Amino acid sequence: MLSKNLQAMSKRQALFTQSLRTFSAEPSNAPPKRVAVTGAAGNIAYSILYRIDSEEFLGKNQRVILHLVDLPFAEKALTGVMAELHDCAFPLLDSVVCATNPTDGFRDVDYAFMVGAKPRGPGMERADLLKDNGQIFVGVGKAMADVAKRDCKTIVVGNPANTNCLILQNHAKGIPSENFTAMTRLDHNRALTQLALKTNSKVTDIKKMAIWGNHSPTMYPDVRNTTIAGKPALSLIDDDWKIKEFTPRVQKRGAEIIELRGASSAASAGSASIDHMRDWVSGSNEWQSVGILTDGSQYNVPAGLIFSFPVTSSNGKFQLV
Amino acid sequence: MLSKNLQAMSKRQALFTQSLRTFSAEPSNAPPKRVAVTGAAGNIAYSILYRIDSEEFLGKNQRVILHLVDLPFAEKALTGVMAELHDCAFPLLDSVVCATNPTDGFRDVDYAFMVGAKPRGPGMERADLLKDNGQIFVGVGKAMADVAKRDCKTIVVGNPANTNCLILQNHAKGIPSENFTAMTRLDHNRALTQLALKTNSKVTDIKKMAIWGNHSPTMYPDVRNTTIAGKPALSLIDDDWKIKEFTPRVQKRGAEIIELRGASSAASAGSASIDHMRDWVSGSNEWQSVGILTDGSQYNVPAGLIFSFPVTSSNGKFQLV
Repeated sequence: MLSKNLQAMSKRQALFTQSLRTFSAEPSNAPPKRVAVTGAAGNIAYSILYRIDSEEFLGKNQRVILHLVDLPFAEKALTGVMAELHDCAFPLLDSVVCATNPTDGFRDVDYAFMVGAKPRGPGMERADLLKDNGQIFVGVGKAMADVAKRDCKTIVVGNPANTNCLILQNHAKGIPSENFTAMTRLDHNRALTQLALKTNSKVTDIKKMAIWGNHSPTMYPDVRNTTIAGKPALSLIDDDWKIKEFTPRVQKRGAEIIELRGASSAASAGSASIDHMRDWVSGSNEWQSVGILTDGSQYNVPAGLIFSFPVTSSNGKFQLV
Repeated sequence: MLSKNLQAMSKRQALFTQSLRTFSAEPSNAPPKRVAVTGAAGNIAYSILYRIDSEEFLGKNQRVILHLVDLPFAEKALTGVMAELHDCAFPLLDSVVCATNPTDGFRDVDYAFMVGAKPRGPGMERADLLKDNGQIFVGVGKAMADVAKRDCKTIVVGNPANTNCLILQNHAKGIPSENFTAMTRLDHNRALTQLALKTNSKVTDIKKMAIWGNHSPTMYPDVRNTTIAGKPALSLIDDDWKIKEFTPRVQKRGAEIIELRGASSAASAGSASIDHMRDWVSGSNEWQSVGILTDGSQYNVPAGLIFSFPVTSSNGKFQLV
């Protein structure tokens, strides 16, 4: 009987390019939003797909159509991810689209989580990495120009996030460049927690912390304006800790996680991407950190970079602090 | 600097048995609830810890203290999981406790997700599996008798879930046996989806479906009372599909997922455990499927088994349909 089931699964190829209408929620008859996730067969995506479908991103009244996008080698695994999403019977999941090319993957998409990127392998030069990822993001950008919603909001998670984001927005003609952002929220969250642990306070008591730069070891967590339960952070921590422990720990936290877990950060990166996108869509008066395209007018940072600044958000837009 | 960070991490042993007070939420000053998850370094737990912390289980006003419980071999990995949870800066996560023994792991615990269990290895007899898991669950049950809250609610996810649950409730003296349940919600959700896909309907339109028995290939998905958008399911599907495709597919779905993903179900199992526990705590008039202890009075099933029945839930209790 099992082998018969497995035979039945060979039909999946036929199903693959078809948008399976499976679920609709009772709460709302509003049209579903299309949310694309790249690297959809990978570990970070696996940690966020289930949260996107369960009200954490767009709330409990908004149905979603999930677009699982990955490279052709991952085609079979994508059908497995889709099968597990089906097995969750999420009331808010309208349907799932699997795609191994960006034109199918980004058609009419409202929100894009660009999680996938080619990681740096052994012996690989940074130039090789940029070249390989560059090709991918050029293709995705062109496809978005052709088929994505004109107001599609995009977060780039896959590293090098700033470069990938720059390439992407440069090729996604017709979509405002402010709609392309790079994630530094993970660094932001890491910094909040280290401050909370150090001062025995709540993360929600920490205000006005900022990440400057890019998600890389050169990024800078800035506590000069930060308050903790109303007091200046700099009155609660000493310079020595800040310079010798806090800053490098936030900068190199990724390596620490790998050392402890034996695997790189996945769910925490996914969680930060949900935070970033939720606050972008729903608004928040709290300081967030987001990588955006510079035009030369912000804080003396040269034009034409994707660079992380402190922002707040309202009406679907980030505002520079 | 990194090596210095890594040195600092060697302090983790000292932190390990200590309950790190890290986060508290603004929404509520109610005491946090303690939620234990076993097999906390594994893949299923990894998929649910982040959802427990982000309002999906107990809502957005209830802070939680997470107890990460696993066997001693996983001690270092547990600290990695804790580090990633920290890195999420969840407003609702009050603190994290790591434990490699059940007495620390279940102290004052309000809710327990028993995800961990020893899987059946190559050449292993079923008797060996039962013996090994039996020893673990005897120990956990005795610890719960000693230290857990008297009204602690437990779901057993780790297989064989029914046997593990039976052993557990038998040794957890002082906690009502009705507080120990085994998960068949994954089978339930899988069945809902297969019906929805077959009839091109919404999962939320499917009512009164039931899983009988145990999470194993002998489990039985029952559609005799099921309605789909108000119509009897049996008027919409034919017997041939039901017998030859639907029933075996639900029964053997786990193998299908492994074949497609190259890995066993993780996030869908985790998601079902969240559904089970959320509906238990918050109540639901929808039919759910839950493995409970039989007393001989239910549907002619012999007493003294953990067996899945259709239930509804209210006031923190399941009611047999």
